[in-house]
Amino acid sequence: MEFQIHNPLDMHIHFRDEEMKDLVAPLTSWTFSGALVMPNLVPPVMNLEDLKAYKKRIEAVTSQDNFTPYMTVFFHEGLTREVLEEIKDYVTTIKLYPAWITTNSEWGVTSILSDTNKKIFADMQDLGIMLSIHGETGDFVMDREANFMPNYELIAKEFPRLKIVMEHITTREAAQTLDKYPNLYATITLQHLEITLDDVAGWALKPHLFCKPIAKRDEDRDALLELALSGHPKVSFGSDSAPHPQHAKECCGCAAGVFTAPIALQVLTEIFEKNEKLENLQKFVSTNAISIYGLTPNTKTIELEKKEFQVPEKYGNVVPYKAGETIAWSIKTIS
Amino acid sequence: MEFQIHNPLDMHIHFRDEEMKDLVAPLTSWTFSGALVMPNLVPPVMNLEDLKAYKKRIEAVTSQDNFTPYMTVFFHEGLTREVLEEIKDYVTTIKLYPAWITTNSEWGVTSILSDTNKKIFADMQDLGIMLSIHGETGDFVMDREANFMPNYELIAKEFPRLKIVMEHITTREAAQTLDKYPNLYATITLQHLEITLDDVAGWALKPHLFCKPIAKRDEDRDALLELALSGHPKVSFGSDSAPHPQHAKECCGCAAGVFTAPIALQVLTEIFEKNEKLENLQKFVSTNAISIYGLTPNTKTIELEKKEFQVPEKYGNVVPYKAGETIAWSIKTIS
Repeated sequence: MEFQIHNPLDMHIHFRDEEMKDLVAPLTSWTFSGALVMPNLVPPVMNLEDLKAYKKRIEAVTSQDNFTPYMTVFFHEGLTREVLEEIKDYVTTIKLYPAWITTNSEWGVTSILSDTNKKIFADMQDLGIMLSIHGETGDFVMDREANFMPNYELIAKEFPRLKIVMEHITTREAAQTLDKYPNLYATITLQHLEITLDDVAGWALKPHLFCKPIAKRDEDRDALLELALSGHPKVSFGSDSAPHPQHAKECCGCAAGVFTAPIALQVLTEIFEKNEKLENLQKFVSTNAISIYGLTPNTKTIELEKKEFQVPEKYGNVVPYKAGETIAWSIKTIS
Repeated sequence: MEFQIHNPLDMHIHFRDEEMKDLVAPLTSWTFSGALVMPNLVPPVMNLEDLKAYKKRIEAVTSQDNFTPYMTVFFHEGLTREVLEEIKDYVTTIKLYPAWITTNSEWGVTSILSDTNKKIFADMQDLGIMLSIHGETGDFVMDREANFMPNYELIAKEFPRLKIVMEHITTREAAQTLDKYPNLYATITLQHLEITLDDVAGWALKPHLFCKPIAKRDEDRDALLELALSGHPKVSFGSDSAPHPQHAKECCGCAAGVFTAPIALQVLTEIFEKNEKLENLQKFVSTNAISIYGLTPNTKTIELEKKEFQVPEKYGNVVPYKAGETIAWSIKTIS
C-alpha cells in the first residue's frame, strides 16, 4: 500500500541554532516543503536583522532540499509600528510567549493584555501580520491551557481581523474555543494526537514524552484527534518538534520537548490510515496551512509505503519520539 | 528553639533487600522507634518463613539502634485460614497490592473483591489481622486513587471489624472517605504534604519527586495537610520512603519512589512548626499509630533543634528528597 503527500508543511518547528540546527534542520527539510521556525533562541529572534541572519544560517544547512523556512519574530514590547512595517514582508507570524512558560521564554510577556501589547496587536491587524501564541498560564500544570482560553477570546474579539494561531493545543477546551471566533486557528503536534499524561508519568516517568503543554487526558487527546482527522480547515499540523541533547532530557530536571520531525509524516500516515481518514491527511499537513497562512509552498511529493520502519535510537545526540520502536509506514521516495 | 518527639513510628517503609537494605534500614532505625516494613521484595514476603528470614536480615543491620521492624506479608490467594493463624502473631498488617500498580506488584491481586479474597478478609477480621491497601485502579493517573474509593467502602462495609489502612493517601476523595467508616484508617507520606504534580512535571521533569500514587493538586495536598496537622486520630505518618539507585531514577523511564527516611522527622517538624501545629506532631508520628495498630514501641526521644541542615546530595547511591537543599531543623540528640 502506498500513499502520497504533496507539499507537506510543519507550522511549528524548533531548529535551535549552531550544531543542533545543523543536525535537525535537514531532518525537516528532507521531508517537508516548508516549516514555521520558532524564534525562541537565546537570545530570541527579535528584529529583522536577527531574522535575516537566522534564516541564512538555516538555509546554509537546508539548501540541498526544496525547502522554505517560514520565519517568526519573538513578540516583545519593542515592536513599534515602524519595526512591524519593516518586518512585515519577512515574517509569517509573530510568536507570543508568556514569560517563563516554556524553554527560552524568559523574554516573554508578563501581561498579555497590557496597553502596549494591545497597540501591537492593533498594528499587526492593520498590517496583516499573524499572531502565534503559546497559550498557557502559570497555573496548575493540567489547567494551564484551559485557563488561558479567556485570553484568546479577548484578543480574538477585540481584534477581529487579526489572525491568531493557538499553538500546539492539547485540550478539549481549546478545541471548543477554536470555532467560537472566525479569526482563531490552531496547530496540533504529532504526540498530542497519541499520548496522554499516563504515557508521560502514569507508569514510569518518560522524559522523552515530556513537553509543554504537557499531554492531558484521554478526552482531550480524542478531541484533538477528531479535529485533525476531520481535516478541520482552521487546523494545521505543527510538530513542535523540539530537540534537546540526550543529557538535558535524562538528567535530573529534564528539559521539555519531544523530537518528532524525522518520523512525523510516517506516523501521521499511520494514524490517519488506522482511523480510515487518509483522505483528510493532505488538508492537515498542507492545504489548510496554505490557506490559513497564505503560503505558496515548494512543490514536493512524499511517497510513503506501508512497510515497517524501525525508528533509530538517536539522531546525533537527540533521542526521537518512538526511539527503537517499529512504525508501520516508511518514506519510499521524495520528489 | 528545640522540640522533642517521643517514640516516632514510620508506618510505611521500603527497606528492599541486600545492599540497599543495608544502606537504608539504618537510616530509619537511627531516628525511629519502629517502622512497618513493606513486603514487596522480588519475590515478595509471602509467608511466615519469608517474614522471619527478612526480619532477621533487617535486624542484622538495625540492631545497633533501639528499633523494631513491624512486619507485613504480601496479600495473595494462598492466605488460607491455617496460614493466617500461623502468621497472626508475627504480622502487623497484610499488604494488598492491585497487580501491576506499583513497584514489584506483579504478584498482586487482579480482582480485589473476588470470593477468594473476601474469604481471606473474613478470616483476617476473625483473627484480628489488619489490612493495608495500595488503593489505586489502573485508570488515568490523576484518577486512580479517587476511582479506587468504592473498593475501600465495599470492604469497610462488608467487614466492619476488619481494620483497613488506606496507604499513602494523596487525594481529597480519600480524606473524605476516611471518616465514612469507623474501620478505615490512613497513612500519609512526607512528600504528599508538600508537593503537587506541578513539582513533578509542571516545569522540568523531576524524577526524584516521582512516586505512586503521583502527587495531585493543591486542594488534595491541602486536604492531607489538614488531616496531618490536626492530628486526626485515624491518620499515621507512613513515609513510603522508597529508595532506588540513582541510575534507576534518572535513566529513561524512571522508577517510582521518593527517598525521605533520613530527613522525615526534621521536615515534618518544619511543616508542623510553620503551620503552628507542633502540638499535634506527636500524634501524627507516634501516638495515633500506637493506638491504631496496638503497638508498644521502644522508648526513644528525638531532640530536634531549629538549626539549618543541608541535606546530602546522596546517601550511598540514593538521592534523597530535598537533596542539596537547606532545611530548617536538625536532629540534636537521640536518646
